[in-house]
Amino acid sequence: MNILKQPTSYTWVEQAITNIDTILLDHSHCERKAAGVALNLMFRYPSNTKLVRDLTAIAREELEHFELVNQWLERRGIPLAPLSSPPYAAGLKATIRPAEPNRLLDSLLISGLIEARSHERLGLLATHCPDPELAEFYHSLMASEARHFGIYWVLADTYFDRDIVKMRLDELAIKESELLSTLHPEPRIHS
Amino acid sequence: MNILKQPTSYTWVEQAITNIDTILLDHSHCERKAAGVALNLMFRYPSNTKLVRDLTAIAREELEHFELVNQWLERRGIPLAPLSSPPYAAGLKATIRPAEPNRLLDSLLISGLIEARSHERLGLLATHCPDPELAEFYHSLMASEARHFGIYWVLADTYFDRDIVKMRLDELAIKESELLSTLHPEPRIHS
Ligand SMILES: [Fe+2]
Ligand SMILES: [Fe+2]
Ligand SMILES: [Fe+2]
Ligand SMILES: [Fe+2]
Repeated sequence: MNILKQPTSYTWVEQAITNIDTILLDHSHCERKAAGVALNLMFRYPSNTKLVRDLTAIAREELEHFELVNQWLERRGIPLAPLSSPPYAAGLKATIRPAEPNRLLDSLLISGLIEARSHERLGLLATHCPDPELAEFYHSLMASEARHFGIYWVLADTYFDRDIVKMRLDELAIKESELLSTLHPEPRIHS
Repeated sequence: MNILKQPTSYTWVEQAITNIDTILLDHSHCERKAAGVALNLMFRYPSNTKLVRDLTAIAREELEHFELVNQWLERRGIPLAPLSSPPYAAGLKATIRPAEPNRLLDSLLISGLIEARSHERLGLLATHCPDPELAEFYHSLMASEARHFGIYWVLADTYFDRDIVKMRLDELAIKESELLSTLHPEPRIHS
């Protein structure tokens, strides 16, 4: 995804591959949170027909991913458990401007950036994971996450002027890369 | 559903049938809220494997129902719009005891009761709706809502002693019927 300002460093790949069980558990939380974010946006903008329709589809897919990741956890005997969040999502959320319509624009673009980063990182896991079946699983999720980025982008482009969307996406993408520039000590999808 | 203490009055049926467009719009909100409630419970109890698995399935189905109801809205030219909530859900939520494990038990039973009442009312709409296709649609949703009641009941029975579950369900069912004993002036699924 060429909208990401900095590619993921090899140190993240090493951290993730050597802690793949924790990454799987964190991935489960990420999919559930992705569904939650889509649903919350639908609650906040109940009259925006296109937004509601597109985010319903995303929420349904994220719940399907959540189920699939949980099947991997079960297969590997990893119990469901809470896990502390890395500073990534909270750092991005803090950039959302509180007044509408900026709030909507920023929410859509941040969700899109998280999808784009997930796409990149699932791709790295697909390439570097030593278990070929798990690698194939990561590969199978990549396309959805890229498509989800596209949906958030098109929604932003539907409700806002394209120049404004591009400029703001650029600013937020810089912030997104900054938040990942120091590796978080706990292995996470977005550490 | 013989767990409901009082059947729905005919005045509700009259109100609903003569305001079927508002009922459809409110039904859309109900399905989205049902998905939200299931997702929130999953967030609150992320380590309860059975709860997480069963509520993921419910959330996915409610989102599917939400899409189906929204297709009916589109077909009838009813735009998506916010709608004030009747006192029903808030009244039930107020009965949830705040300390665990009571909070979990009450949350499960209240969700179950709402499903049971939805099952009953969709059945009444299926019987009395003059549009045969819409009646058939209501009929097609009834079975899921009955099954959802069953899932919430089994979850309560999984995590709690059966006698305690039965006793509390009885108390909450009385409250549920009380909340519907006076018809809310605005036509709603739970007016
Ligand atoms: Fe996903
Ligand atoms: Fe996604
Ligand atoms: Fe439903
Ligand atoms: Fe339901």
